[in-house]
Amino acid sequence: MKIAIIGATGYTGGELLRLLAQHPNVEVTCVTSNQSAGEPLYSRHPFLKGHYELTLEALDPQKIAQKADFIFVALSHTTAMTPVQQFMKLGKKVIDLSADFRLESSTLYENWYKSPHKAPALLNQRIYGLPEVYRDKIKTAQLIANPGCYPTGTLLGVYPFLKAGLLDFDRQIIIDAKSGVSGAGRSPSSKTHFPEVNEALLPYNIGTHRHLPEINQEMTHFAGKMPQTLFTPYLLPVNRGILTTIYLPLNTSLSQKKIDTVFETYQNETFIRLIKEPSNISSVRGTNYCDISAFETPLQKTVIIITAIDNLVKGAAGQAIQNMNLMMGWEESLGLSNPGFFP
Amino acid sequence: MKIAIIGATGYTGGELLRLLAQHPNVEVTCVTSNQSAGEPLYSRHPFLKGHYELTLEALDPQKIAQKADFIFVALSHTTAMTPVQQFMKLGKKVIDLSADFRLESSTLYENWYKSPHKAPALLNQRIYGLPEVYRDKIKTAQLIANPGCYPTGTLLGVYPFLKAGLLDFDRQIIIDAKSGVSGAGRSPSSKTHFPEVNEALLPYNIGTHRHLPEINQEMTHFAGKMPQTLFTPYLLPVNRGILTTIYLPLNTSLSQKKIDTVFETYQNETFIRLIKEPSNISSVRGTNYCDISAFETPLQKTVIIITAIDNLVKGAAGQAIQNMNLMMGWEESLGLSNPGFFP
Amino acid sequence: MKIAIIGATGYTGGELLRLLAQHPNVEVTCVTSNQSAGEPLYSRHPFLKGHYELTLEALDPQKIAQKADFIFVALSHTTAMTPVQQFMKLGKKVIDLSADFRLESSTLYENWYKSPHKAPALLNQRIYGLPEVYRDKIKTAQLIANPGCYPTGTLLGVYPFLKAGLLDFDRQIIIDAKSGVSGAGRSPSSKTHFPEVNEALLPYNIGTHRHLPEINQEMTHFAGKMPQTLFTPYLLPVNRGILTTIYLPLNTSLSQKKIDTVFETYQNETFIRLIKEPSNISSVRGTNYCDISAFETPLQKTVIIITAIDNLVKGAAGQAIQNMNLMMGWEESLGLSNPGFFP
Amino acid sequence: MKIAIIGATGYTGGELLRLLAQHPNVEVTCVTSNQSAGEPLYSRHPFLKGHYELTLEALDPQKIAQKADFIFVALSHTTAMTPVQQFMKLGKKVIDLSADFRLESSTLYENWYKSPHKAPALLNQRIYGLPEVYRDKIKTAQLIANPGCYPTGTLLGVYPFLKAGLLDFDRQIIIDAKSGVSGAGRSPSSKTHFPEVNEALLPYNIGTHRHLPEINQEMTHFAGKMPQTLFTPYLLPVNRGILTTIYLPLNTSLSQKKIDTVFETYQNETFIRLIKEPSNISSVRGTNYCDISAFETPLQKTVIIITAIDNLVKGAAGQAIQNMNLMMGWEESLGLSNPGFFP
Repeated sequence: MKIAIIGATGYTGGELLRLLAQHPNVEVTCVTSNQSAGEPLYSRHPFLKGHYELTLEALDPQKIAQKADFIFVALSHTTAMTPVQQFMKLGKKVIDLSADFRLESSTLYENWYKSPHKAPALLNQRIYGLPEVYRDKIKTAQLIANPGCYPTGTLLGVYPFLKAGLLDFDRQIIIDAKSGVSGAGRSPSSKTHFPEVNEALLPYNIGTHRHLPEINQEMTHFAGKMPQTLFTPYLLPVNRGILTTIYLPLNTSLSQKKIDTVFETYQNETFIRLIKEPSNISSVRGTNYCDISAFETPLQKTVIIITAIDNLVKGAAGQAIQNMNLMMGWEESLGLSNPGFFP
Repeated sequence: MKIAIIGATGYTGGELLRLLAQHPNVEVTCVTSNQSAGEPLYSRHPFLKGHYELTLEALDPQKIAQKADFIFVALSHTTAMTPVQQFMKLGKKVIDLSADFRLESSTLYENWYKSPHKAPALLNQRIYGLPEVYRDKIKTAQLIANPGCYPTGTLLGVYPFLKAGLLDFDRQIIIDAKSGVSGAGRSPSSKTHFPEVNEALLPYNIGTHRHLPEINQEMTHFAGKMPQTLFTPYLLPVNRGILTTIYLPLNTSLSQKKIDTVFETYQNETFIRLIKEPSNISSVRGTNYCDISAFETPLQKTVIIITAIDNLVKGAAGQAIQNMNLMMGWEESLGLSNPGFFP
Repeated sequence: MKIAIIGATGYTGGELLRLLAQHPNVEVTCVTSNQSAGEPLYSRHPFLKGHYELTLEALDPQKIAQKADFIFVALSHTTAMTPVQQFMKLGKKVIDLSADFRLESSTLYENWYKSPHKAPALLNQRIYGLPEVYRDKIKTAQLIANPGCYPTGTLLGVYPFLKAGLLDFDRQIIIDAKSGVSGAGRSPSSKTHFPEVNEALLPYNIGTHRHLPEINQEMTHFAGKMPQTLFTPYLLPVNRGILTTIYLPLNTSLSQKKIDTVFETYQNETFIRLIKEPSNISSVRGTNYCDISAFETPLQKTVIIITAIDNLVKGAAGQAIQNMNLMMGWEESLGLSNPGFFP
Repeated sequence: MKIAIIGATGYTGGELLRLLAQHPNVEVTCVTSNQSAGEPLYSRHPFLKGHYELTLEALDPQKIAQKADFIFVALSHTTAMTPVQQFMKLGKKVIDLSADFRLESSTLYENWYKSPHKAPALLNQRIYGLPEVYRDKIKTAQLIANPGCYPTGTLLGVYPFLKAGLLDFDRQIIIDAKSGVSGAGRSPSSKTHFPEVNEALLPYNIGTHRHLPEINQEMTHFAGKMPQTLFTPYLLPVNRGILTTIYLPLNTSLSQKKIDTVFETYQNETFIRLIKEPSNISSVRGTNYCDISAFETPLQKTVIIITAIDNLVKGAAGQAIQNMNLMMGWEESLGLSNPGFFP
């Protein structure tokens, strides 16, 4: 199958290219970049030299539609909506890795992203691409909203408890999530300048991060009712990885043994590893895994859940490929089965 | 005044030496190391070359008592008790930077440190050296138990609320604390081997960290009753700094403005900086500051408090010097007034 | 083909396992560790959970010979000789990743490694496993001495010039080589303790590093005569990668164009990428590539050559697999064709 | 004495402020920033909160001249010339930390900095502020060109040999210099974006770095004749520090003992530490030291010299203060005598 990557020069685009190079059923035939059109792909991704002979091209949906059957859109939010719509009209299957189709409500989108939604009709049609939750719907979707990195790490941790009706709605779910810097994208900024991040740990956007409504939307689906959520993200001085610690209030006491039982819902999931030792981002580096560990607490009415993902893989490109595999009826782990990268 | 540092080759010993070199009223006359006795101090601390001409010597309390008036003990836990007792008997003022005198109860000590307490009588006499809370008692103490690094970062954050009777005892205080690797000491181990820590974030000792009973002991003093506490520490890939995020349950709604008012109790504290932006360890590097920021939450019955300290300064050597200044009747900030170190 | 990895718990062992999991023709059937025998493999390599169900076992050559056809020995120097000899006697093909068979002279070995050589007879038989130089000999070898990481980065850089007779023997070859910390192995030490390495850059073993005689041995083969060599290695605060800058004295002036022509000898090499921009370890991370850039200098009688490798891949496990592929008559790049890992 | 810092929001400005806060004879009365005029200083330097109550102001030389006696200019190159000239005309003593007055020849400046020199007359008058070489001239100067960071690390290493006539002019001086990222300034760029620098090592501007003519100018003064120089700089994934390795060709054989004797010329220098172990940037962090180690080589006609400085201190702000002390007739080390910062 022929693939186009719209917005190929960022970290997400690069990660798609890294992973797709190992995928047996696809060929990337088109990579776009408005800023670097005309340059060879490897000029922006020297690590890919020898793997692709592609030249970056401008974003021209009509032209691209001739060369590709399946479209990954890796543009930044607010700029993805229009091309997504164009490719949809051209009958292509599309996975959008931006935030543009993650929120179901265009009003909510406009409040949080300070921009009108340009393709609200598609919001009814798009599927939220979290395979462990929405696998069946994904299989028949034409448009996938690929989940955000923080939401992925959070939602996979809480899903079994919320679905099982174990949440205490009277107390807050506390999400303390630490992300590597590639999560902030490839455009330089003061906050991501090396000497500012290195030897530092920066909490940011407390209570105002745009991934919060996305987390709440999905938790509401899981639990049947909107929970109270506190979400504190941090910029961690590493390249990759999100470690999310969730303090989840329960409406009943749960021993360690019962906690482990709740997570058995994941026992057939290829990309979820239930582990005894605390999760560490270094064990999932470069992989599509979500490593989950969970710990009982003294009075047993709170469980501490720690998830580790690679923000560029399970938090972006890897999950997108997992979604593509489902949409195409292929083995879900195709092209994603390599071990991680340690140290 | 003449100073001895017992256990001078670790990071805490080195930091005492760094800071005391700037202190106008003292002279370090004795540095000990059982392993490196006979070697010049700078062989173990090359950065101090040119600042001290001292030779490391074996720990001989009688001999040291002749050369020094004031003793800092920077040994590891269980090995500090005996020398502390010896120096006390010799009439010296002592600040113990180990954990050996932090817990008031020898039974609790023995449970958590798996070792009998060898000087339980001193536990009645020692003062817990958190100046912002126990300043007056510190002034007349002969023996100070210098607080642990995690407890310092936590206790300074919660003290004004607990003291003001604002804690909701029915919910848990959640402490999510990320520490630089120097907090683990200078002895190499698998966990602190560079490729294991770098590009990683390791939660550890969840619910079992030895700083937890110390935190609970003090919070009980502040609040009048033992709170419920969850404490999750992490090894962060930086050299220095602890960032502690506390989700503190309140028994009343507090707006941002009222939260700020609660913290006004600190308005005359030299080493506490109340800031609007989220605290970052990079702003306190090398200093005795505790930077505190706090944030209201939607229903206002939880406050998010974020404290940043340098684990080697306010979390160890700097606080010890602050305590020494109080014990000697000197200006509390003597030798500690330099700005931090950025980047 | 069935594979045994002798010494599987270190970084080299882990990297062999990472790469072999992607190799279509092999199955790892045996992993040994004297220290951790009886434990599941993933207890020492959590990142491999889900990829291998193996249990670590003690090193028993007879027993292992029943389960495996091909042996990788990833033990530390001086401890590899004996098992290598045992497996050779049992008729197995062996790749030794230690230093024990790299030097052709047992006397030189004994001088540099301060230990008698226990299998000197094998030194006549073993082939130095640098495929770009010794490909044909490797194909028929039973025992490969896998090159050291620094030698690999250096030798691939100088080979075309030395072979072409362009070296000025009257001046020194200067090798300034910076290595990531995984090159020092997985055993913790004071030098590799995180706070000592982080924010530092440590030159070490100047003129005394054990890779120097290995480099000189091979350069003598290439050039027909022993060159003068200065070799300065550094411990770099990164996990992986060696960047080697070579200031190579020439016996004639060479313009940039002529320099590029000399490197054309590599034009059919899969794992050498000739690049225009200065080499960077970040572009070869996780790959078997050696990226080479070279620069003319004002009077053109010195060329600056910069090579980048991943010390665990082209500098160890990847090159070993490349050698295995050659020994087995397989496609040389089998299992090694994935792109790198950036960022 | 009253001090103004022109361009106070960068790393060099911040470091001047850090160090001047400890200086007994001065008071900073004015800090400028055209971009952030009107904001409190600590908004751009949170680590300085509590140390200065200053507000950033626009650059108005007349106005500043009323408030300050001594001017540090920490602007970027090409933008410093005009204000320097203005302050000179107003009779102030000025230390320029930019590159604008380092090169004696305006033609050379214009070639390397691609900009006409706007104050060429001052080039005859300015003194190159390397105290260990030009101490006497500095004492009476009105304008100091503060040396570049790479030149400082290089020149202090080679000076004793060049001055002693020991250089072999027929061979190249090879300078392999690794710099922390703060040396690139505080403005974000693709090259200094965290994920690009972290886990990487980037050689850059080989043969074309603007510090090369500065190095050559001074080496010509030291040696009486222009040497041949190869200069390879690297971006190192640390915040601070330059480690410079110099392979210096000698016109005679020098044993280790004789090498050490040559360096005795520095025996009374406060800020040069001659050490036996290889220099490491971690030992000079935060200090004005230049740590120098040197090693003989087999045929003794090359010496390997390794210098370590903190690029922001001895490579910028610290050296500027050392120059100020000399210009004012004060103790040379005033305000600069604190030990470093380890780890």
